[in-house]
Amino acid sequence: MSDCIFCKIINGDIPSAKVYEDENVFAFLDISQVTKGHTLVIPKKHQANVFELTPEVAQNVFAAVPKIANGLKKAFNPIGLNVLNNNGEKAGQSVFHFHLHLIPRYGKGDGFGAVWETHTSEYSPEELQTIAKNITDEL
Amino acid sequence: MSDCIFCKIINGDIPSAKVYEDENVFAFLDISQVTKGHTLVIPKKHQANVFELTPEVAQNVFAAVPKIANGLKKAFNPIGLNVLNNNGEKAGQSVFHFHLHLIPRYGKGDGFGAVWETHTSEYSPEELQTIAKNITDEL
Ligand SMILES: [Zn+2]
Ligand SMILES: [Zn+2]
Repeated sequence: MSDCIFCKIINGDIPSAKVYEDENVFAFLDISQVTKGHTLVIPKKHQANVFELTPEVAQNVFAAVPKIANGLKKAFNPIGLNVLNNNGEKAGQSVFHFHLHLIPRYGKGDGFGAVWETHTSEYSPEELQTIAKNITDEL
Repeated sequence: MSDCIFCKIINGDIPSAKVYEDENVFAFLDISQVTKGHTLVIPKKHQANVFELTPEVAQNVFAAVPKIANGLKKAFNPIGLNVLNNNGEKAGQSVFHFHLHLIPRYGKGDGFGAVWETHTSEYSPEELQTIAKNITDEL
């Protein structure tokens, strides 16, 4: 897509710190570096978000993830790693070309974390079955 | 794996609110329901985390994600959706069978969010190239 910054990075029209490339996938450092080594993995084919992702493109992108994750592990010896994908502006997406954030972790205060409020006691087993059925009815 | 709670859920030894199943993948509601519809997508093959994930299993798991994400969208009309995968206890992993969290979003205070401290100005373009090379040297 001509006005997409990630398509321009793939094409080399905008420079990047490239980490990995194959026929279908491109990976480069996020300029923001939430933590050291913070990498974006994207499909070469422009698809905006997880809702638009075709199964084939989804497969291609994720096939490359373990290799890059292990490269990050060997390079920087993090204590963990998060993979995050944001879809929709209100869920934190700022570039509308599907991307996975690979975020190596180095301990508290390293720059990344999750707000995580559990609601375990708010749903009965029957209510959970109803929620699940609401989803399966749409698959 | 005999002592893995997710393997037991796949086998039906522990009940779950099932959302999706195919030959290679199982998806069910997270009992914690960080937000309504919060779903876990897991491979049927036990692999502990992204570092252990074989490319084939990675492909299989992610191929199912767009379908389930669209099911969540149609069922609950969220304003966005995050996909999160935690690897390592200190990165938030509590069950050591690879899993993707699909978290529909409904607005501020819905239960999920990301701590996201950017460090854009801390690295020069040359430093970013060095970090990228550190990783590619390990691929
Ligand atoms: Zn693009
Ligand atoms: Zn297991």
